[in-house]
Amino acid sequence: MQQIFFMELLTKYSQALALHLDSAVTVKKPAQLYEPVKYILTLGGKRLRPVLTLLTADFFGDNYEKAMNAALAVELFHNFSLIHDDIMDNAPIRRGKETVHEKWDINTGILSGDAMLILAYQLFEAYEPAQFQELAKLFSKTALEVCEGQQYDVDFETRDDVTIPEYIKMIDYKTAVLIGAAMQMGAIVANASESCCQGVYDFGRNLGVAFQLQDDYLDAFGDPKTFGKQVGGDIIANKKTFLYLTALSTSSTRDAETLEHLFNINPKDPSDKIETVKEIFQSSGAAKATILEIEVYTQKANRILETLKLSEEKKEKLRAFGNWLMERTV
Amino acid sequence: MQQIFFMELLTKYSQALALHLDSAVTVKKPAQLYEPVKYILTLGGKRLRPVLTLLTADFFGDNYEKAMNAALAVELFHNFSLIHDDIMDNAPIRRGKETVHEKWDINTGILSGDAMLILAYQLFEAYEPAQFQELAKLFSKTALEVCEGQQYDVDFETRDDVTIPEYIKMIDYKTAVLIGAAMQMGAIVANASESCCQGVYDFGRNLGVAFQLQDDYLDAFGDPKTFGKQVGGDIIANKKTFLYLTALSTSSTRDAETLEHLFNINPKDPSDKIETVKEIFQSSGAAKATILEIEVYTQKANRILETLKLSEEKKEKLRAFGNWLMERTV
Repeated sequence: MQQIFFMELLTKYSQALALHLDSAVTVKKPAQLYEPVKYILTLGGKRLRPVLTLLTADFFGDNYEKAMNAALAVELFHNFSLIHDDIMDNAPIRRGKETVHEKWDINTGILSGDAMLILAYQLFEAYEPAQFQELAKLFSKTALEVCEGQQYDVDFETRDDVTIPEYIKMIDYKTAVLIGAAMQMGAIVANASESCCQGVYDFGRNLGVAFQLQDDYLDAFGDPKTFGKQVGGDIIANKKTFLYLTALSTSSTRDAETLEHLFNINPKDPSDKIETVKEIFQSSGAAKATILEIEVYTQKANRILETLKLSEEKKEKLRAFGNWLMERTV
Repeated sequence: MQQIFFMELLTKYSQALALHLDSAVTVKKPAQLYEPVKYILTLGGKRLRPVLTLLTADFFGDNYEKAMNAALAVELFHNFSLIHDDIMDNAPIRRGKETVHEKWDINTGILSGDAMLILAYQLFEAYEPAQFQELAKLFSKTALEVCEGQQYDVDFETRDDVTIPEYIKMIDYKTAVLIGAAMQMGAIVANASESCCQGVYDFGRNLGVAFQLQDDYLDAFGDPKTFGKQVGGDIIANKKTFLYLTALSTSSTRDAETLEHLFNINPKDPSDKIETVKEIFQSSGAAKATILEIEVYTQKANRILETLKLSEEKKEKLRAFGNWLMERTV
């Protein structure tokens, strides 16, 4: 029952957001600049981050609609980073459709991405000065961390001495801080206390790390039917995920050597490689360690939740949200 | 005498700015992200825009140092746009040194540029909320116009029906609005009246159009010894400048055809092409028309200056500044 109510809530936020997006982001001239902005924003996707902003505003305040512009700013920023990351990763497909630089060209991707980042800041102009500053400050800090996370991710590609704490920091910056910030913005708009704002940020950030670790896990062990992306994609791309780094440090010397070898080749048919890597992920205990680590961050998030000044009912809903997020597609 | 005092003033601003830049923009980790930021900011250049912010703050207020962060934000934004434009234009050289994407790579250029745009916004955080909002709002509006100007510039490359008003709009957005905004930020920080803020913006913007038109003119007719860039660069690049568009509409059919032909070829040795084009620019009256147009915008700027609530002495200095700007390298 709780779950149904919760899903209805999410649907409500998503619909309100789509409506607001329609009126707030229009294709002005020059069309070549603004069409890609509209294109990527209407590609679909879960809209997880802006929904979190609205959910948090709803729980801490009396009118989640007030958070609509902040929520949309978060979504614009996220999509800006996708456009630029896709150029850097040379990725042709995003959410099953052509990426912006593929549909248009790299220059269009760069410039439309830039415009989108600026448009995100403009959305905060709807708030009065003190709130505007608080939102923009949090936004800038977070945006810079996301850039740093992306840079670490790029750096790690050519390094063979990446440590597990370094990896956690990378996913924290690249993914988790924006989830924390998305929630905090909802709390700011709802005029929640400073400790609630901080608490909800920490809750979201820890959940964000758990979310990304789970993404790593599902990439190898997810169900191809329900996992949104190609299963084994990280293995094919030789990505040094938590699974890989843990396996490397816990497996036998022979397995570690095999792993290192496999992460230096790009076979045409990767199915054997994927199978062998997955076996080592299992036999080394890395798969289990990843599940445990996900649990650690989920528990951290839930402990923080307990300290929030919210009704038990609302806490339960946030917990349900976390569970929903973590149970997707397993 | 006035002129010497004025140059001393500019030197003072430049030095203060360099000092502030040193402490406000540091190379944090990851170095690959922040080194290019520092690199382009210390390449030199005139620092025209931030100097204008400080000059305006000085004239309207009691302490130009208050405008230091706003001035630096303008400089960061300008350099962010240079990094991304250089990628789009495939330009290997900037201010006599390697461009960022040439020294590092395109991905580094994209990401460091992004970080720089965010860092620019962060510099406004030094101001109290009302001023912060006013500065960030002006900044976002201007930044978006600069993106639009860049997009028009890109669009014009493949269009053969660009009109002169369209061209003026393009340079207005790509160059002039930032000069206007740089000055207005100085006025905002100095708590100048709304009409002064608007006036100084309009002054700077008109001067900015004149400045860019002059840049077009000098590209063809400047003295190679004093003009900072390669003389004839726009002609080699087949750039449809004010000179070209005017010549096309005022020259004989035969000359117009020659011009169109020459702007469709890329000879290995461009010296003959440059000479012929310059002859048509002269014979068609386009060169004279450009000088007149520069005069029109300079006069517009000066008329606006007269309406500003400033001492005659300060107006004289702003006029001197305009003259200095327009007399450079002719």
